[in-house]
Parts: sequence; C-alpha cells; structure tokens
Amino acid sequence: MSKVRREHGAGGELMESLIKEELLPNLTMRGEGSVTLDDLDDGATFPSVDGEMVMTTDAHIVDPPFFPGGNVGKLAAAGTANDLAVMGAKPVAFACSIVVREGFPIDDLKRVYRSIDGVLSELGAHLITGDTKVGNTGDVDIVVTMTGVGEIVELVRDCGLRPGDKIVITGTVGDHGMAILAAQQGLDTDLESDVAPVWEAVNAALEVGGVTSMKDPTRGGLAGALNEMAEKSGVRIVIEEERIPIREEVRVLSEMLGVNPLEVANEGKVVMGVRPDMVDDVLDAIRSTEVGKNAEVIGVVEEGTPRVEMETEVGGRRIVEKPVGDPVPRVC
Amino acid sequence: MSKVRREHGAGGELMESLIKEELLPNLTMRGEGSVTLDDLDDGATFPSVDGEMVMTTDAHIVDPPFFPGGNVGKLAAAGTANDLAVMGAKPVAFACSIVVREGFPIDDLKRVYRSIDGVLSELGAHLITGDTKVGNTGDVDIVVTMTGVGEIVELVRDCGLRPGDKIVITGTVGDHGMAILAAQQGLDTDLESDVAPVWEAVNAALEVGGVTSMKDPTRGGLAGALNEMAEKSGVRIVIEEERIPIREEVRVLSEMLGVNPLEVANEGKVVMGVRPDMVDDVLDAIRSTEVGKNAEVIGVVEEGTPRVEMETEVGGRRIVEKPVGDPVPRVC
Ligand SMILES: Nc1ncnc2c1ncn2[C@@H]1O[C@H](COP(=O)(O)OP(=O)(O)OP(=O)(O)O)[C@@H](O)[C@H]1O
Ligand SMILES: Nc1ncnc2c1ncn2[C@@H]1O[C@H](COP(=O)(O)OP(=O)(O)OP(=O)(O)O)[C@@H](O)[C@H]1O
Ligand SMILES: [Mg+2]
Ligand SMILES: [Mg+2]
Ligand SMILES: [Mg+2]
Ligand SMILES: [Mg+2]
Ligand SMILES: [Mg+2]
Ligand SMILES: [Mg+2]
Repeated sequence: MSKVRREHGAGGELMESLIKEELLPNLTMRGEGSVTLDDLDDGATFPSVDGEMVMTTDAHIVDPPFFPGGNVGKLAAAGTANDLAVMGAKPVAFACSIVVREGFPIDDLKRVYRSIDGVLSELGAHLITGDTKVGNTGDVDIVVTMTGVGEIVELVRDCGLRPGDKIVITGTVGDHGMAILAAQQGLDTDLESDVAPVWEAVNAALEVGGVTSMKDPTRGGLAGALNEMAEKSGVRIVIEEERIPIREEVRVLSEMLGVNPLEVANEGKVVMGVRPDMVDDVLDAIRSTEVGKNAEVIGVVEEGTPRVEMETEVGGRRIVEKPVGDPVPRVC
Repeated sequence: MSKVRREHGAGGELMESLIKEELLPNLTMRGEGSVTLDDLDDGATFPSVDGEMVMTTDAHIVDPPFFPGGNVGKLAAAGTANDLAVMGAKPVAFACSIVVREGFPIDDLKRVYRSIDGVLSELGAHLITGDTKVGNTGDVDIVVTMTGVGEIVELVRDCGLRPGDKIVITGTVGDHGMAILAAQQGLDTDLESDVAPVWEAVNAALEVGGVTSMKDPTRGGLAGALNEMAEKSGVRIVIEEERIPIREEVRVLSEMLGVNPLEVANEGKVVMGVRPDMVDDVLDAIRSTEVGKNAEVIGVVEEGTPRVEMETEVGGRRIVEKPVGDPVPRVC
C-alpha cells in the first residue's frame, strides 16, 4: 500500500501527481467559478453575492482520525460548514489545507477526501483550493484545516438572546465527545459521533423565523456554548435537565468515566434561542429534517446576572459552569 | 515565561483568555464587517464585491519557525496574500488556524501575531477569524494555516503565456530557500529570506497592463513555476542565465551545498509574462515599488514543445527540468 513521502509535500511533480491522481478523483464538488480546483492555479474563484459574506476556519487534529461515525475529513467539512450555518450563512466554497506525517497511507487520504466530498455534495458547496505539506508531526497523523465562506441568508449572532426566548437543541447531546473518548480508551461500545452538516435544520428554522441566536456546541459542549451565549447576550439561561436529549449509551459511559456529557463536543448540533411565539413552528420545522429529528426545547431565557442554571431532575437548581476546556483531548 | 498548555486548545475559558489577552492585543487589523474578530463569534463577515472573488490557502510548517528575515507568521500572511496577488486579486480578509505543540512559548505566539499584523497593515486587509488547537506535534512546533479571500482587480491565470511575451521576475531568486537551508544547517551567513507581500508590485504592473500570466515561485522555485506556466500555456520559455538576478551570497552558498538556486522557494517574488510592447513600462512600474526594485526581464516565450530552456552564461542551451520537489525540507 503506498504511503505519503516527504516529496509529496514539496511542491513538485510528486505532489502534483498525488493531487491529480489520488485526491481529485475522489472529489466531485471542485468549483463552479471561472477558476476551479481542476485548474490547479494559485487559488480559485467563487461567486460572490451582494453585501457581506461570512468566513470561518477550523483546524482538526482529532485522535483517532478515523472514528465510529466519521473521520477527520467529514469532521473538517461539517465542522466548518456548521460554523457558517450558525452565523446564518449557506456554505458556498471551501479551502482545505493538509499537513500529514510521512508514512500516512495514501488510501486513508483518499477516504478523507471522499468524506469531504460527501458533506460538500449534501450542501451543494465546493472545495476550490488546497495545500499539502508533509512533516514529522509526532502524535498527530494528519491536520485538516478547512476554511469556508458562506452567503448570508440571515445574519444570526451568538449574542442575540432576549428574555423570554426559548432554548432549542437540535438533537442529542454528547455523542461526538463520548464516541471519541470511547475510541481513545479502546472501549467497545455502540457509540457513534453525530458529525454531520446542520445547514438543513438551520435553514428550516430560518425560514420559519424568530431565531435570535445560534451556536454549534463543539469544544466545551452544550455547557460551553450556553455560557458564551448567556455572557455575550447579558442574560440568564435556565435549562431543565430532564428535557436535554441524551442517548442512554452516552449517559452510561459518561457516568462510568466521570465525564459530564454537557461539556463534551457535539459535531452535528445547534443550540438556538427562539422567540416564544415562534418556537412551536420552529421546532416542527427542525424536526422535519433528518439532522434535527430529535430537537427539543430545553429551557428559557430570563433577565438576571448572566449565567446558566439547570433545574435538576430531583427538583433543585444548580449553576452550569463554563468549562475551562473540553474534558476530551484532541476531540476535534 | 508562560507556555502553551493543552487546555489552551480545548475551547474553554483558558483558550478564550489566550486569544483575548495574548493574541488580539497584537493585532490591529481585526475586521471591518458587521461581525469582526473582536466579536469572537463562530465566524465573521467581510464585504463582498460584485462578481467573483478569489480564495487561496497555505499551511506553513517552516523549520525553524523564526528565521533570518521573518517567521512563520509573516510567511503565512505574505504567502497567502501572494497567491491572491498572482491571481490578480487584492487581499481583503484572512482566516488563521494555529496548531501548536504543548510548551511553545506564548511570547513567540505573540511575535507571530505581530508579524501577521505587519503584513495585514501593509495590505489594508484583515484577519477576521481563527482557530487554535494544541497537540504533541513532534518535530513541528507550530502549523500556521492562512486562508485568504481577495477582490479581483484583473483575473490573471498561470496558463496565459503567449509566444512573444517577455518573462519578468520581480527580484532576486533563491533568497528564502537558501536562508532557510543555511539556518537548518546552522551556518553563519548574512542571508535573509525575501518574505514579503508582493501586492504593491503586482498592482503597479496591472495598472500599466499587458500582464498575461503570473505565479509566485514558492516551493520548487523559479524552475518549478516556469515549467508549470509553460506546460499549462502550451508554450516554450527561454530564459537567459546571466539575466537572472541572484545575490552573491545565495550563489556562493548554493554552490557550496550543491543546491540549485532556481529550484528553491522564494516568498516575496512574482514571475510574470508581459506583452512585449508593454514590458518596458511594466518593468518601470514594478521597479518603482520597494518589493520590485530589482525586477528584471529574464526571458521570452516562444512557440514549441512546452518546456523551459536556458541560454547559459557560456553560450549553450540546456533544459531547466521541473523539480520533483523542493530540495529544502520544510521550507515553508
Ligand atoms: N490537499 C489539497 N486538496 C486540494 N487541493 C490541493 C491540495 N493541495 C494542493 N492543492 C491544489 O494544488 C495546486 C498546487 O498547490 P500548491 O500548494 O503547490 O500551490 P501554491 O500555494 O501556489 O504553492 P506553495 O504551497 O508552494 O506556496 C493548487 O491549485 C492547490 O489549490
Ligand atoms: N488563533 C486564532 N487567531 C485568531 N482568532 C482566533 C484564533 N483561535 C480562535 N480564534 C477566534 O476565537 C473565537 C472562538 O474560537 P473557537 O475555535 O472556539 O470557535 P468555534 O470554531 O466556534 O469552536 P470549535 O473550534 O470548538 O469548533 C472565534 O471567533 C475565532 O475566530
Ligand atoms: Mg502560488
Ligand atoms: Mg468550529
Ligand atoms: Mg500551497
Ligand atoms: Mg462554533
Ligand atoms: Mg502558495
Ligand atoms: Mg474553532
């Protein structure tokens, strides 16, 4: 099986053949501008639109790079698309830079590109430019950095919560982080990452209207995202523990390992604030999409010192702290 | 001196304080859209324009990350800006993803950001979004991936050469690659990298007109860039050895180390094709800029089998081969 060599990252003939013969054939969404990825020029073009566009980027060093439910390519494409989505922007074009260690199997690189292509095809967006470097990257087999630009459908900020808004989560919480942790620990479980693009659910919600704020609860999990939204919006969020959808396997494993499922990363979820008079319709719209079928209303926004409180299943109230960091190392 | 810890890349409070307190204060160009880097939202906005825009990306793993004439931050900002420039696009907005090893000095991270800011200030472009991950990245201290979008002033391809065009290089050849190689070998030289944004020189040339093709001769050097342009344009390029500007120190070191200065990376140069009737004016315009002051006409485009030939100083002709890769490892 052929492996990545140093020269594959050295800008010459060997790199060109890697890109042309191994990567491009696994990609169908290669651009639609007057310069596309096929041109292998210094960059490529994307159709711009009236007014502003959104840009976002994430580097991915997830360990292991192939995990139950996905791989670093799917994660990179979905992760970046989802940061565009929660800004209210439809993904248009992506750039993908790879840093890979010598000896990485080229077949694995192809799988990564097929997964990227799967996400792009679902979104109707294109990978138009990239870069490839090879180094001795120690514990990190591959770094996939995906940057995206998107067309604003309706600009939504993470600071827009208002008292009275309902808090909606588009599905179960903790799946990605617990699946990665299980894989890292070598545990044999049925857990799968939730990694998926969320645009369809977001778009359905935006079409109904009344969405005041959105965030994708990645590193730091739901607890991190809610704390940021509360802080930035200057409001208190009160969530009800029993309404938060958590898979039974996630609950069991998180108790076993002593990890809070609200603090681990999700990679196919959105948490949003919705005007109370719109929330039923928004929930229906989100639930009508595959990625949002388990959506729930989990809380409400109140006036008060910015923080997140949780009404527990036994009837008490406790503060949901902002995590110092995600408890799972190299979760994305 | 404080160092990067794992939690600095874990998406929580510690990461937020690293970004807010250490990185942002070293950046002045933080966006001008309705969402900027200061908002620390999931992404940020940039003003789009009519028609298409250009996007490009490069990951940088240069060894050493601080080298004579620059560092990985300056390299990343200039490198990405230069790929936009050679497409004929003025840089508008950038995204910067960092992967850094545990233990990396935070002061060095600040220096990297100050250098990025220097390039952005010169260009009037903004860093609007980023990402930070921490891992045990072996030999690689830091990966800086910079992605940029630019407004097209005049779309210029790398396949546009036509017989009769003159070949212009905007300055001396081999400086970056030989400076990095000298640093890697622990040699005590006066060599400095040429790393710099080239937009000013490119813009000056575009204002005159007659530019048919451009490329930045990075990995694979001038030999690589010319071969690609010849291949893609379906033409022969003939260059004159004695007209290629090469610093004496670069010449001496390249002979000493047996490395061809035409095959190593440049990071502040452009090679372009120019219509013969315009070349004098284009050359004057380029030379009037600081980054282009040593520009020269080094050859001509002919009909014929696509390849690059060189008339040597002793009067012969030889083929300039397309490099398999750049002879200097981790040159950028
Ligand atoms: N991993 C990748 N995925 C998709 N496209 C890639 C990838 N690596 C490189 N490319 C594409 O291949 C072409 C050549 O890439 P290359 O990095 O050599 O260009 P460059 O940035 O101009 O040169 P340098 O990286 O030396 O500055 C570009 O069009 C680039 O978009
Ligand atoms: N190295 C960096 N340089 C500049 N800005 C950064 C950097 N790292 C992060 N940021 C900014 O800090 C904010 C928070 O980044 P973060 O990566 O946590 O957001 P996210 O992508 O939504 O979350 P995740 O990375 O977990 O998916 C964003 O606005 C981002 O642009
Ligand atoms: Mg280039
Ligand atoms: Mg993200
Ligand atoms: Mg590149
Ligand atoms: Mg986000
Ligand atoms: Mg480049
Ligand atoms: Mg991020």
